[in-house]
Amino acid sequence: MLNIGLIGAGRIGQIHGESIANRNPNANLAAISDVHLPSAQALAERLHVKNVYTDHRDILADPTIDAVAICSSSNVHAQQIKEAAEAGKHIFCEKPIATDLAKIDEALAAVEKAGVKLLVAFQRRFDPSFAAAQAKVAAGELGDPRLIIITSRDPAPPPVEYLKASGGLFNDMTIHDFDMARFLVPDSPIVEVYATGGTLVDEKIGTEANDIDTAALILKYENGATAIINNCRQSDYGYDQRIEWFGSKGQVQVNNHQPNQAVISTAAGVESALPYHFFLERYMDAYVNEMQAFIDCVNNDTAPIVSGIDGRWPVVIAKAAALSLQENRPVLISEIK
Amino acid sequence: MLNIGLIGAGRIGQIHGESIANRNPNANLAAISDVHLPSAQALAERLHVKNVYTDHRDILADPTIDAVAICSSSNVHAQQIKEAAEAGKHIFCEKPIATDLAKIDEALAAVEKAGVKLLVAFQRRFDPSFAAAQAKVAAGELGDPRLIIITSRDPAPPPVEYLKASGGLFNDMTIHDFDMARFLVPDSPIVEVYATGGTLVDEKIGTEANDIDTAALILKYENGATAIINNCRQSDYGYDQRIEWFGSKGQVQVNNHQPNQAVISTAAGVESALPYHFFLERYMDAYVNEMQAFIDCVNNDTAPIVSGIDGRWPVVIAKAAALSLQENRPVLISEIK
Amino acid sequence: MLNIGLIGAGRIGQIHGESIANRNPNANLAAISDVHLPSAQALAERLHVKNVYTDHRDILADPTIDAVAICSSSNVHAQQIKEAAEAGKHIFCEKPIATDLAKIDEALAAVEKAGVKLLVAFQRRFDPSFAAAQAKVAAGELGDPRLIIITSRDPAPPPVEYLKASGGLFNDMTIHDFDMARFLVPDSPIVEVYATGGTLVDEKIGTEANDIDTAALILKYENGATAIINNCRQSDYGYDQRIEWFGSKGQVQVNNHQPNQAVISTAAGVESALPYHFFLERYMDAYVNEMQAFIDCVNNDTAPIVSGIDGRWPVVIAKAAALSLQENRPVLISEIK
Amino acid sequence: MLNIGLIGAGRIGQIHGESIANRNPNANLAAISDVHLPSAQALAERLHVKNVYTDHRDILADPTIDAVAICSSSNVHAQQIKEAAEAGKHIFCEKPIATDLAKIDEALAAVEKAGVKLLVAFQRRFDPSFAAAQAKVAAGELGDPRLIIITSRDPAPPPVEYLKASGGLFNDMTIHDFDMARFLVPDSPIVEVYATGGTLVDEKIGTEANDIDTAALILKYENGATAIINNCRQSDYGYDQRIEWFGSKGQVQVNNHQPNQAVISTAAGVESALPYHFFLERYMDAYVNEMQAFIDCVNNDTAPIVSGIDGRWPVVIAKAAALSLQENRPVLISEIK
Repeated sequence: MLNIGLIGAGRIGQIHGESIANRNPNANLAAISDVHLPSAQALAERLHVKNVYTDHRDILADPTIDAVAICSSSNVHAQQIKEAAEAGKHIFCEKPIATDLAKIDEALAAVEKAGVKLLVAFQRRFDPSFAAAQAKVAAGELGDPRLIIITSRDPAPPPVEYLKASGGLFNDMTIHDFDMARFLVPDSPIVEVYATGGTLVDEKIGTEANDIDTAALILKYENGATAIINNCRQSDYGYDQRIEWFGSKGQVQVNNHQPNQAVISTAAGVESALPYHFFLERYMDAYVNEMQAFIDCVNNDTAPIVSGIDGRWPVVIAKAAALSLQENRPVLISEIK
Repeated sequence: MLNIGLIGAGRIGQIHGESIANRNPNANLAAISDVHLPSAQALAERLHVKNVYTDHRDILADPTIDAVAICSSSNVHAQQIKEAAEAGKHIFCEKPIATDLAKIDEALAAVEKAGVKLLVAFQRRFDPSFAAAQAKVAAGELGDPRLIIITSRDPAPPPVEYLKASGGLFNDMTIHDFDMARFLVPDSPIVEVYATGGTLVDEKIGTEANDIDTAALILKYENGATAIINNCRQSDYGYDQRIEWFGSKGQVQVNNHQPNQAVISTAAGVESALPYHFFLERYMDAYVNEMQAFIDCVNNDTAPIVSGIDGRWPVVIAKAAALSLQENRPVLISEIK
Repeated sequence: MLNIGLIGAGRIGQIHGESIANRNPNANLAAISDVHLPSAQALAERLHVKNVYTDHRDILADPTIDAVAICSSSNVHAQQIKEAAEAGKHIFCEKPIATDLAKIDEALAAVEKAGVKLLVAFQRRFDPSFAAAQAKVAAGELGDPRLIIITSRDPAPPPVEYLKASGGLFNDMTIHDFDMARFLVPDSPIVEVYATGGTLVDEKIGTEANDIDTAALILKYENGATAIINNCRQSDYGYDQRIEWFGSKGQVQVNNHQPNQAVISTAAGVESALPYHFFLERYMDAYVNEMQAFIDCVNNDTAPIVSGIDGRWPVVIAKAAALSLQENRPVLISEIK
Repeated sequence: MLNIGLIGAGRIGQIHGESIANRNPNANLAAISDVHLPSAQALAERLHVKNVYTDHRDILADPTIDAVAICSSSNVHAQQIKEAAEAGKHIFCEKPIATDLAKIDEALAAVEKAGVKLLVAFQRRFDPSFAAAQAKVAAGELGDPRLIIITSRDPAPPPVEYLKASGGLFNDMTIHDFDMARFLVPDSPIVEVYATGGTLVDEKIGTEANDIDTAALILKYENGATAIINNCRQSDYGYDQRIEWFGSKGQVQVNNHQPNQAVISTAAGVESALPYHFFLERYMDAYVNEMQAFIDCVNNDTAPIVSGIDGRWPVVIAKAAALSLQENRPVLISEIK
């Protein structure tokens, strides 16, 4: 039985807290902290948790707690990883570790030194469809990779205010696709990025947030394969999350998940349901699965499926993509320090 | 906040208990009873419930409890409905109410007299796909019904020992399809049944359990529409649960739900995932939705979506089907008393 | 090179004539006859055919002609088969041979005596999809048959005047499904039929043509398997032609063919194309393939894929179905003499 | 009735000849020429054509001929267009017009001067699926374009000897995708190209033919939209021809066409057919449709759907792509002279 303390009781913290408390027989939600105490209290009451704190260090100080789930603001992730590692706790951390590479490296060094487990929560790796696709790939059934196509489109853009602080499309949205690109070609590193994009959804995203809302990227792997990513902040038909992996022996496509399988045929045409509305619905299974994977890797002393290095890579690629967009040229990963 | 007592802590009782405790903010799981006390205790511990009993009458005697969820053995459902109604509790009851019409009528009379709500748990009505299909039908978008095709096939037959006590294929399995047939044509009663079938899966089902394992049925509605049901106790490709509704303005089909949306193309062909393995996976959303519907109908004082009469009808149709099979002739519903 | 004379230059005669003339390198369209000479002349001009007649006996008298394609009115098929057989010509004949069993038997006896080939044009057997499904079945890959579901729905009913002379739904429309039922379970004869139906499309079809427009049928095979057929004369979403074959090792479904594979996703839903409009579009490949099969069976001296007996069976089943509908009881095939 | 002379009786010439002779009631195949006379003679015999020549100029000299279909070797297209225009014949010409821009311009000038029609045979524009998709786009139903994804993968690479003379992947294969990119965003020109690729299928394609076999390209339109093209010379699952068009109001995808619609479900999974094997099967309807469009545009005096300029553009884009690949940088269309 793994005793876990939850740091952060916001939207994603509630999902992970509920997962620990109600869906994992081998874990126990032992404490909750949030800088906004009432949030922690409300969640604790719902999940029958007794220990509630404002300061996450109260969790770290509790010797009965084995692990923490960091669901706080992104800007404190790296610091909390460091502290948790120093306290000897295993760590589940929401992405990103940080946007600054030096901070990431410092956090990873602390994890390394402490010898604790760190799982970075790129939940798409735990989605049943993407995982099934990758299993086929990893088993070699589809041969060597040639072309990988990753599609991510959001139903609607966040407010411009949010975007101003988001770190830009590549850090905020494409970061998941960068992780997918690595997940789907595990044996060969990405060596070059070409990124292009613009503001086709809302001009203010450019003029006010200095960001883009639509992008297309080409990533080259060392082995000669290519990944193509396309993104948009707005999609009239809803949340669009697909991948295609094409190799020397075949192809696998992951299509969108739909809330129902009813198909209606009338004189107007044949109609089926739109995809799930957005990431909470689409990836609910994945959130449960990733927490299960974290609990299992600690309980069974196995390697985390998404390591600290896996958490660092997408940040590097995002920096290369940003530079490529700025200079309209392919950028080598080795240019990013 | 609705205080609910759970009667029966077996497989389906655990599902409904977890639903009440963890997934419905407007309900509280206040007590659990099971004739096998350790089962009740184990579930109570997991769900943080304090009141645990062997005898369901301890739940009925508790004045703080508003409603019960009857998940006990089928043979005591009718009696427990009666007792719960007399105790003034609203009732959620697993299907079937009983297989004896007199017992059903007695239970329904008690419910009527007490003025409590009764929702009979035909979970397929709450499945997102079937519900979406029925909503189109009910909205009149597909016109008047003509042909309804209902397919139910199980991945594997239960043990012959189970089948001996099951009441036969029509009572044990087709009963859900009879309910679907009514759900999908709500405005016109079924008036005649022709049933045929045999043992194509396992001869012992015939020789030892005196039952059939494969069936085809034609049901006629008063309005002239026809429902076609086909069943099999064994399906190599897994649990097959589909419907098709065809009317004067169009058609709706509900296809199987799959655990993942990966499609693999190789020289051997284009391959996608098998359906969900069996009913617990396939109808998990439906189980949560039906408990939600029960809680809502009590809290909001609305009519239960599946009434006591809805619980009685499929039993009547099953009797007509059994007689039809025996005599190889169409049987009028009015023949069943 | 097979020299073929075409008897009948109407709609289906034009299709088969074009097939012989332009799509089969091993056949030659040598002559055309039609009781309406201008029809024969127009087709002959288009297809570069020199010999044009009013009387089909001029074709039969031509010693350079090896085979005939009978595409005349149904009521003269049996007589023309007899005459062609006596003239020593191989015979391709549109369905049905006749609706009178004695006439069929007389025609088949003439074919037998003459030792010529007869292929009855049940074109669905030559459809790429149905043929692919049946090939899987015939190869034993799906095990023993259990349930076969055949769906045929027309886009719109023919005029009531046509229906008065059509021989009734079972002879005019379901006859193809009866053939499919035999095609899909080749090793076991049909032994019993239960038919039900009514007029849900247009009351006049009942009151004026004494026919039904919607039907559901259950056919039992000797081996215990069951076929379910459902028909309707009108379908708002177009021509609906599907089959499902379910057996001890798996299932095969044939879905509708669509004129295009574009899938449109908007806020309103995910939409794809309606099926092909009607039988000429849907079965164009099948028409070409069946003529090819006829030419091949003559040129290579192999057995016709659809024999005279195959042409007789659906007529027998149709008679059993009509009797079942009339008396609302299952009817044994052995009752039909 | 349009009298057409066919220049070139090879594989594609046979398809177009058959189309003119047998499938277009408003056209007549009046003559055939081929530098290899027996090819012309064999085709003429099959299609009942009397005038057969070695020299295409015999066709041009015939005053009864209204139009020519140029299906000769690519290297003589431009010259024959010029001659045909000067002879006052309307022109249907297989792609490409030429690979040299000066030659193209000379041919187009001759067409312009003569005032004849020229339709360049990019057959994909006439494919029912791509045309249906484009019709939705052109009708504005899907809003303004954002991202277009074009996938073309061949079942197997041609011999290296062929590739040496092919002009390279972009001229030989991607050229169709460049045309699709223009077809799908008709209102805004392509202004920049970034191309990447390598030899992942067969090293000899690089070492001996100095070509690539796998490519990914990003094309920017003046309006800010982006097209992504991905190609491969070899695909284990067959010929893969898909498009996706995503805009401000929705998306359209064109999936592969399959030879049959049978779906097989066994314990091993759910399996459907592979795509059509290669372009002749996949685009047979398109070949017929494009000839029909040519005949219609001449007979009705309307503009050809694919003009001479439409024939020039893909050659320009291919040159930009080749330069981009060579220098690994985005190349402006305006750099190509």
